[in-house]
Amino acid sequence: MKDTTLKEIATKLGISITTVSKALKNYPDVSAKTKQAVIDLAQNLHYTPNSFAVNLRTKESKTIGLIIPTLVHDFFSNVIQGILEEAEKRDYLVIILQSNEKFEFEKKQIDLLLNKRVDGILMSLSNETDEFEHLKTILSHNTPLVLFDKIAKLVNCSKVTINDRKAAYDAVSYLIKKGYKKIAHFRGSYLPQNSIDRFLGYKKALEDNNIAYDSSLVFVCENNPDFEDGYANAKKVVNEHPEIDAIFAVTDLVAVGIIKYCNEVGIAIPTQIAVLGFSNWFMSSVISPKLSTIDQPGFEIGRKSASILFDEINLKKNNLPVVFQSIELETSIIEREST
Amino acid sequence: MKDTTLKEIATKLGISITTVSKALKNYPDVSAKTKQAVIDLAQNLHYTPNSFAVNLRTKESKTIGLIIPTLVHDFFSNVIQGILEEAEKRDYLVIILQSNEKFEFEKKQIDLLLNKRVDGILMSLSNETDEFEHLKTILSHNTPLVLFDKIAKLVNCSKVTINDRKAAYDAVSYLIKKGYKKIAHFRGSYLPQNSIDRFLGYKKALEDNNIAYDSSLVFVCENNPDFEDGYANAKKVVNEHPEIDAIFAVTDLVAVGIIKYCNEVGIAIPTQIAVLGFSNWFMSSVISPKLSTIDQPGFEIGRKSASILFDEINLKKNNLPVVFQSIELETSIIEREST
Repeated sequence: MKDTTLKEIATKLGISITTVSKALKNYPDVSAKTKQAVIDLAQNLHYTPNSFAVNLRTKESKTIGLIIPTLVHDFFSNVIQGILEEAEKRDYLVIILQSNEKFEFEKKQIDLLLNKRVDGILMSLSNETDEFEHLKTILSHNTPLVLFDKIAKLVNCSKVTINDRKAAYDAVSYLIKKGYKKIAHFRGSYLPQNSIDRFLGYKKALEDNNIAYDSSLVFVCENNPDFEDGYANAKKVVNEHPEIDAIFAVTDLVAVGIIKYCNEVGIAIPTQIAVLGFSNWFMSSVISPKLSTIDQPGFEIGRKSASILFDEINLKKNNLPVVFQSIELETSIIEREST
Repeated sequence: MKDTTLKEIATKLGISITTVSKALKNYPDVSAKTKQAVIDLAQNLHYTPNSFAVNLRTKESKTIGLIIPTLVHDFFSNVIQGILEEAEKRDYLVIILQSNEKFEFEKKQIDLLLNKRVDGILMSLSNETDEFEHLKTILSHNTPLVLFDKIAKLVNCSKVTINDRKAAYDAVSYLIKKGYKKIAHFRGSYLPQNSIDRFLGYKKALEDNNIAYDSSLVFVCENNPDFEDGYANAKKVVNEHPEIDAIFAVTDLVAVGIIKYCNEVGIAIPTQIAVLGFSNWFMSSVISPKLSTIDQPGFEIGRKSASILFDEINLKKNNLPVVFQSIELETSIIEREST
């Protein structure tokens, strides 16, 4: 079927295209009878306004772009749900792209979204990203940008995060209060701000509690920290430092790898080694032993980021000034069986 | 910053708009020097072609729509990854919408996507969907549609599924071969085809092995089968039918709920009750005991669905006839500790 045009409707009803157009927009100078006839025929013919033409006129696409490192990830799935819920309320559509933690993909995806003339962009940066020209390109197009989770501190735009440093500080202080003294840290890679901040929080908590920081107890999970990193590093730390009594992992996925290793070799959790995760993935509540962790509010991060973006899109549309916001959402410690 | 137009580039370089346009499209009748000047200036000014105008001309949006029941779901996350990978290869963008298992949302989302003039639509139906006019609307717009996972058998379009009935049949036959005789089934709700087919496969395997089908051993997980359904139904079946020796669950999430209940009340898996899941979620390999399950190739389902859709989009563009395909991908049994 060819797309129905206003002209066809006009010809079929023997009225002008202008009248058809006015009828569909519910203008007062068209009779109720004519309006009804136009609407009925439009529905019968499956008429939909040509969005390309509408977009060309309004310069709005009613679409936003979202770039995340990866989708198969409990935290990002929850973020996306929050974003989709806010978009849904406003009849906005969301184009979702995965950078797969690659800087080059991220750059290309920004070009695709700008070419598409999306009304705004939401992003969590890849672990490789250490220069920010591509983000500045977004801003130079006057396209609203909100960064969340993995952000660039120096880029001038709104940001939604948790206080990673404080959350890690509280987490490690909690372990110390529980009596653990030799606490290893399985950190994320060196670039993302959240990985740096969680490490700094760990270090500060030790120092504030008069426990000497020992760099040999810090293990890096390369690239995209995952299950295998936790498993491999647990094996390493147990062999190299049998004296440790707790491990603070940069994310639950790493912590689950630690638990798997300990279960396999018969290390009792939490009596021999306590394990504390970060993020509160669904699976953390169903594995054995159940993982203690930091609750990171993914859904709320998504909602808040989207709602700020839509506000900025509206302000821009009305030529009003935008004041960038930096929002930090609250986290809390979820105590389960592993600590 | 205002968007840069061809006219500005032309004015700044003192050449015609036509020459600028030809230079950007690499036409042979523009000198290499002029081309370079145009490209350099276009880059400096962050020129991007106005996609709305391009779309209006080409009638292509280079965008497809995807409607899935929910994102926070290991299987659908993997499907999306497969789809994004195929789209990426072709510089296509994907608008993702969640129906939240609601028929009304699904209908509205189709309208949004058609209004947006996406070049094609991929869908897995909501559990509520029992009429298909909205799918026919897509086809009457001559927009290619591919259904996957939760499909409507009678709608005339391409489909990608697994053979749910055979997979369930094989699963239950495997349990019987292992010596289990009183096998309960926690099924999905009554509408989705995959839930019906898994139930029928269960029933047929019992009959073919001379085990009488007993409807009181079938428990329905309402709406969106989840963790809580597994937990609650496990409690019920253990009280009402202490004689059962195995449970076949419609999805891993339900099976994880069963395992949690059994672990809590001290029912040994698999010696007292064996548990078999469906889908092979990541967490199934890390819980205790590790869950035996059916591997459902989400990533492949996504890739195949997208690749068929892009083929149909191309055929349509070239006015060639489309032959709808019904693809069934292979599944296999993953034996772990729970059976």
